[in-house]
Amino acid sequence: MPRAHANPRRNQEQPLYDRDVPTPTHAERARTLMEALKTGTLATLAAEPEGHPYASFITFALDAGDPVLLISEMAEHTQNLRRDGRASLLAAESGSEDPLANGRVTLVGECRVADGDDGARQAYLDRLPNAAYYADFKDFHFWRLEVESVRYIGGYGRMSWVAGDDWRGAEPDPLAEHAAGIVAHMNQDHADAMALMCRAFSRAEGAEEVTMTGIDRYGFEMSVMTERGPRPVRLAFPQEVATPTQARKALVAMVGEARAGGGDGT
Amino acid sequence: MPRAHANPRRNQEQPLYDRDVPTPTHAERARTLMEALKTGTLATLAAEPEGHPYASFITFALDAGDPVLLISEMAEHTQNLRRDGRASLLAAESGSEDPLANGRVTLVGECRVADGDDGARQAYLDRLPNAAYYADFKDFHFWRLEVESVRYIGGYGRMSWVAGDDWRGAEPDPLAEHAAGIVAHMNQDHADAMALMCRAFSRAEGAEEVTMTGIDRYGFEMSVMTERGPRPVRLAFPQEVATPTQARKALVAMVGEARAGGGDGT
Repeated sequence: MPRAHANPRRNQEQPLYDRDVPTPTHAERARTLMEALKTGTLATLAAEPEGHPYASFITFALDAGDPVLLISEMAEHTQNLRRDGRASLLAAESGSEDPLANGRVTLVGECRVADGDDGARQAYLDRLPNAAYYADFKDFHFWRLEVESVRYIGGYGRMSWVAGDDWRGAEPDPLAEHAAGIVAHMNQDHADAMALMCRAFSRAEGAEEVTMTGIDRYGFEMSVMTERGPRPVRLAFPQEVATPTQARKALVAMVGEARAGGGDGT
Repeated sequence: MPRAHANPRRNQEQPLYDRDVPTPTHAERARTLMEALKTGTLATLAAEPEGHPYASFITFALDAGDPVLLISEMAEHTQNLRRDGRASLLAAESGSEDPLANGRVTLVGECRVADGDDGARQAYLDRLPNAAYYADFKDFHFWRLEVESVRYIGGYGRMSWVAGDDWRGAEPDPLAEHAAGIVAHMNQDHADAMALMCRAFSRAEGAEEVTMTGIDRYGFEMSVMTERGPRPVRLAFPQEVATPTQARKALVAMVGEARAGGGDGT
């Protein structure tokens, strides 16, 4: 699977881990990010001044990767879409204090009215149940943005274009909603075990101070303090996991293996 | 001053206060909202597919009402702007749990490179000081979005177009950054005083349960519990205030006046 690693020149020094370790693709990262969000900005082409790009706030739900909107005929963006369906939708994470370090995704495609599209309606009302109140008002309609291509920016230096088919085929990470909790637990209670795994399975042979920074279905990422400052280490699970329980079992097995055959004799 | 009050039909009953009470204009509300934000979404026209509306995440600072950007030549939006400067910028509040109840503003205009524009540079670096690190990189340039018109949506049913000149002439509310603190203080310590003012200066003659919901240079808004449910009451200060101290003095004077001549004898 091709990986779009950014800025290889930034790491002139030998990385502490195998850069070919299984990692979420940009399509998967983008899909995971968007599935967790429900507000964004729609860019449409204005009627007046004609053709001017127009940004407006919307709520959305994804249905098989396509954003579904529920918008009033009176709204500017709806009038714009009635005239020209071309659109894009940006949604952005908000976790990091540095706004440009947050991930964001632009979905580019064409918007069409989704009347009678039960999948669209269901997806939207599942995600935004309060909208049931006005979903059947006469001047409100569901619309579907049929995604043709995707721009993913995962923070500084991690970005690419993703084709529509890759986007549609990508599954959101099954650990996404549990990741923050697992990371907090690992850092609170299992820092020693992570240092042990780093010493056994990476080039961070003297690792002592280790913090988990992320976890996904393929593995997990840590920040290891070295003489030259903090450096990343990513380790893969023996096999893909789908639940927090599977992730825990995989971590326990890896710690056991590190204890048994680890290079540092602990 | 014209007020764009939304959905007058929703209030068939007599409002509890004079609807002509001084109130921030939509231009002022939009300006206040935007001055408090520094991230938004830029809508530009893509080079590929040509003319497609493209939404991207940006950081901005306002300089005399115009958003200033600092963007890399490598970024999609910059390439788009080099080809066609037409753009709009949306920024949205995030306070309310109901996303569509939050205020948002779209600034519509034309983007131009602002090299040598010291005001633009200063405004941006004052607001986003960390950007000083890359502000002088060769492939980064300041840009200015010259605002031609403004779309303001203050939540449900409060919306209008604001002309560029009105936008430029509007001052952000001087109480904006203190409003939340004042509201919290009033609700914690002065609920009785607010009920007294409601009884004396509005049609809420039986007011007992009163909560402040907002305050600005012209006055303040409360929610009064009535037999028919909560209803809004807005009261104006005797004269415009510019600081929290002036607001406090105005409130003290109004409570004194209500005590002295209030209709309910307390």
